[in-house]
Amino acid sequence: MNSYYNTDNGAVQYFIGSDSFQQAEKLFSDYPFIYILIDENTEKYCLDILKKALPGLKIRGYIKIPSGESEKNLERASQIWEKLTNFDANRDSLLINLGGGVITDMGGFCAGTFKRGISFINIPTTLLAQVDAAIGGKTGINFMSIKNQIGLFCDPEAVIINPVFLSTLEDKYWQSGFAEILKYALIMDRELWNILDMRRYSEIDDWEKIISRSAKDKIDIVRYDKMEKGIRKNLNFGHTIGLALESFFLKKGVDITHGQAIAAGMICETWISSKMTDLECVKVDEIIKMIDKNFSRLEISENDIPEIIDIMRQDKKIRDGLFRFSLLRRLGKAVHDIVVEPELTEKSLLFYINNKNCD
Amino acid sequence: MNSYYNTDNGAVQYFIGSDSFQQAEKLFSDYPFIYILIDENTEKYCLDILKKALPGLKIRGYIKIPSGESEKNLERASQIWEKLTNFDANRDSLLINLGGGVITDMGGFCAGTFKRGISFINIPTTLLAQVDAAIGGKTGINFMSIKNQIGLFCDPEAVIINPVFLSTLEDKYWQSGFAEILKYALIMDRELWNILDMRRYSEIDDWEKIISRSAKDKIDIVRYDKMEKGIRKNLNFGHTIGLALESFFLKKGVDITHGQAIAAGMICETWISSKMTDLECVKVDEIIKMIDKNFSRLEISENDIPEIIDIMRQDKKIRDGLFRFSLLRRLGKAVHDIVVEPELTEKSLLFYINNKNCD
Repeated sequence: MNSYYNTDNGAVQYFIGSDSFQQAEKLFSDYPFIYILIDENTEKYCLDILKKALPGLKIRGYIKIPSGESEKNLERASQIWEKLTNFDANRDSLLINLGGGVITDMGGFCAGTFKRGISFINIPTTLLAQVDAAIGGKTGINFMSIKNQIGLFCDPEAVIINPVFLSTLEDKYWQSGFAEILKYALIMDRELWNILDMRRYSEIDDWEKIISRSAKDKIDIVRYDKMEKGIRKNLNFGHTIGLALESFFLKKGVDITHGQAIAAGMICETWISSKMTDLECVKVDEIIKMIDKNFSRLEISENDIPEIIDIMRQDKKIRDGLFRFSLLRRLGKAVHDIVVEPELTEKSLLFYINNKNCD
Repeated sequence: MNSYYNTDNGAVQYFIGSDSFQQAEKLFSDYPFIYILIDENTEKYCLDILKKALPGLKIRGYIKIPSGESEKNLERASQIWEKLTNFDANRDSLLINLGGGVITDMGGFCAGTFKRGISFINIPTTLLAQVDAAIGGKTGINFMSIKNQIGLFCDPEAVIINPVFLSTLEDKYWQSGFAEILKYALIMDRELWNILDMRRYSEIDDWEKIISRSAKDKIDIVRYDKMEKGIRKNLNFGHTIGLALESFFLKKGVDITHGQAIAAGMICETWISSKMTDLECVKVDEIIKMIDKNFSRLEISENDIPEIIDIMRQDKKIRDGLFRFSLLRRLGKAVHDIVVEPELTEKSLLFYINNKNCD
């Protein structure tokens, strides 16, 4: 499978599937100077796979950073710029970002700002990066403990999505990607929901089809609304409450996955949808059943709710004190910018804690 | 005078002239949160002028940095991001860059990367910034002693060019701007050359007309070629040799102005033009006479030439070892990407040192 899409600022090429390296091969011959950004994991598990698949690839230098979200900071970005400077990288150069979301976010930011922009190609190696982070031109680093506080919208030349890298992933990395896949099914892709067919992610054996479909869903959204003025906001479904939950547990020092937080957010926001839109109760039950099959519930109590609501108020998307949600209108269709009262948000968390049924 | 131009990525509004604040006034009412970037000079000489001209302007906070090219670095950029974070600036916010090229370059970079881009307006206060630096979307900071090594192309919402700020400028700041004004006349604006009418810049009393015309020349060029694929390269006239001379004197620790270096570069490159294009000798003499009227010659000797050529080789625009110049085809018309032999470049420096006439 090979897709080519136009975006606002030119063109991003997407190569998706197990033959994607071969499809993309000729792209690399345009660049006399190629550098690769890696971390210790992708150096160990992914670099040889890439080199074997593209034996003609002439790599001029490696830039290695430690893995982990906490490394996505200005100090590491500065080291990447320094390396690129020492390599004499210029506008004829290409940076390949080989890794998960940290690598594609930070590598994209550094390439996009080095000499006012050199070319880069994303080769995402985690499920989450393949179906989400590496697509859509959002790049950035964390700053003063705020996620992606410094960054820019900046398109790669190409994104190469190859399932070969997924075989070595730990369980928690599958989870985070799978939550986003469920989200695409819910907000825009009923057919994907049917393909998932109420399975646990450990039962799934047709990953290539599912990844390819999910990646294309994201590509379609960012193609029409790169700057998040309209339908791209639908991607926030599950994230308004989910990201607040993630921050809440981070503050408490309790380790949960991004996927678990988003799964919890999707349960709450599905319930809110049923109160604010036409979403039927029977669908709510079906959706929550599927989420519960794949993600264990988070341990929160009624007493935690005020603090969680408080964290939501600090969200950068909140203006004029109103919570604006992206909600489901039906299974496979979302709406955005729906103002939801704080009381209903509280009730959705109570529902998450106490109930397993819609009403 | 009020001009409105479209650029690739939306629209930049230009307000030029002594009534420009009034023309631009309603623009500011779109932004509930306005912050101003200043240095100690613009705080002292320019801020009150701005406040008096726009009494309704609601400023929520000031960000002050020390003046000077050496402050255009990552550490200062980081302090600007920190201030914006502490101010809770968001996508509804506006940053006003009130100052010379350092302020507009660094302020544009910081605004363009804060939360993936907040709005900014340039109010240039030096002649050079008014006719050049503040226009065209090039933003950036210096890194590892390389000018603008980190940056991006990023348009302001508006540029407000008001001659009121120029009355307090020191002589050397006039020089740098005036060299660029001469350049616009030479590469694209014969009428501007006629307006300048072989005067010394100290004799000029119609600055508003000259600034407005020069700014519009730059606006026209970047409007058609923001990314410097074609005609924007014409702006490099005088800069290929000029910037090398600037680096040469910087290394020697001798203080010269940017304008002096560019003036010297324009003399050399005018002479090269006469050897490579149809530019007539009589015009060369006229051009050099005008430049010499306004700029004293730099002290270089024959022995310095190899080092100057060497510096040129390290220029980021040099590929495959060839020097590509923007040259004059006639007075008011330039061509770009002309390959010039190093020998001819050396001879042009010899001409600069030894001769005052074309042949």
